[in-house]
Amino acid sequence: MPEPATSRRTSRPEALVTERSVTIVVHSGDLDKLTAAFVIATGAAAMGMRVTLFFTFWGLNALKDGSRAPGKGLLQRLVGWMMPSGPQRVPSSRMNFLGLGPRIFRALMRRGGVGSLPELIAGARAQDVTFTACSLSMDLMGIDRSELIDDIGYGGVASYLAAAQDANTNLFI
Amino acid sequence: MPEPATSRRTSRPEALVTERSVTIVVHSGDLDKLTAAFVIATGAAAMGMRVTLFFTFWGLNALKDGSRAPGKGLLQRLVGWMMPSGPQRVPSSRMNFLGLGPRIFRALMRRGGVGSLPELIAGARAQDVTFTACSLSMDLMGIDRSELIDDIGYGGVASYLAAAQDANTNLFI
Amino acid sequence: MPEPATSRRTSRPEALVTERSVTIVVHSGDLDKLTAAFVIATGAAAMGMRVTLFFTFWGLNALKDGSRAPGKGLLQRLVGWMMPSGPQRVPSSRMNFLGLGPRIFRALMRRGGVGSLPELIAGARAQDVTFTACSLSMDLMGIDRSELIDDIGYGGVASYLAAAQDANTNLFI
Repeated sequence: MPEPATSRRTSRPEALVTERSVTIVVHSGDLDKLTAAFVIATGAAAMGMRVTLFFTFWGLNALKDGSRAPGKGLLQRLVGWMMPSGPQRVPSSRMNFLGLGPRIFRALMRRGGVGSLPELIAGARAQDVTFTACSLSMDLMGIDRSELIDDIGYGGVASYLAAAQDANTNLFI
Repeated sequence: MPEPATSRRTSRPEALVTERSVTIVVHSGDLDKLTAAFVIATGAAAMGMRVTLFFTFWGLNALKDGSRAPGKGLLQRLVGWMMPSGPQRVPSSRMNFLGLGPRIFRALMRRGGVGSLPELIAGARAQDVTFTACSLSMDLMGIDRSELIDDIGYGGVASYLAAAQDANTNLFI
Repeated sequence: MPEPATSRRTSRPEALVTERSVTIVVHSGDLDKLTAAFVIATGAAAMGMRVTLFFTFWGLNALKDGSRAPGKGLLQRLVGWMMPSGPQRVPSSRMNFLGLGPRIFRALMRRGGVGSLPELIAGARAQDVTFTACSLSMDLMGIDRSELIDDIGYGGVASYLAAAQDANTNLFI
């Protein structure tokens, strides 16, 4: 019945036709949630969908390359001390046990053939998943571009929403 | 190829055309996640989208006005003691450090020009973002309408789903 | 204005028409988030929507039937010790207080007429909500099918994405 559909569209001038694409706000820095985000992203890309990962707050840790930028203010250095220095060191979302939880988790990931977080990141990049670092979060956390891996994009909430409004599946992790 | 699309629609009588609108279930009471929710909501509203925030569980703390309602039962008073009394006092989702984490975070927000949580709330309201408090969560947590800020709506899961089913971007934060 | 809409669809061959259906990735094992997931799922099913719950990581705890499978490796047994043995024992996402938080929460759920987590699960199943356990998460966590409740499906990220790409509301909880 195309008629009702047409009249419906006419009455809603802002109606969108969504695409087979996925956006994920990667807000958490927990290893299990980052794993979930990258598994979904890589799976969707393998199925031919366009995928955009938008990294905010603790999620930015996944993009750190392990080096450190000098010359921060005191407040931002304090936040820096609170945050892990790269994807090898992120905690899991519960049962951290002084670092034992993530270590066990990484061992299981190796045995389960999932790959470590750096491997998951490399896999997603190989599949042309778009990485965007939230510039507002970077300002808040005192993270400089020089601290993050290369070949990623930078954008604010408007760039996220532009991707999300056309995507069919939008997650906040 | 319009033909496949048409036949597809015919075989799915419940098909929807989604709108440029956003719903967010604000479940978390963590300062960083509340900030993310309000930044996305305000950004979407500024881009002309309809935005509905549906506050559940700990997210209801963002709507508290700082005053307290008397006459609660023991169980609900216990939950009340566990919860902060207003948006100035919510913790951040990790590294709370006896309250130091949120304090640092608020200082960074000030310096980054983001505004405090009360300012973010005021900004979202000024942009006509719809605030709905989940009535089931309020019952569970023992929160009375008199404890929440004015001019918000109240509704259950059906009201959330009615908004979500027409929206293109639906997040759970 | 149907013309722009048509031309728009032509330029996007992958465009989808979404359905009145809901998918939820149930990643968290926290009582409050599980409650939110089941309340949304059951509400959506009652409104006639198709609902798929995809259980990953800690969310798999909700599907445990309380019995334990023998013969695990050391690593997986360690993870098993970290995890609750069934839906009666999951913690709440904050203020756990040595188990006091969830106990208070369960008492409030009883008094608010929400039902315990096992009752919420039974209610969702009675409404034909589809339960899918993430097979990758099961491998990682060392969870065997014999440990989970009967009559659920098993699948990977592709099965999740297949459901999500047609659904209008996709949440990650």
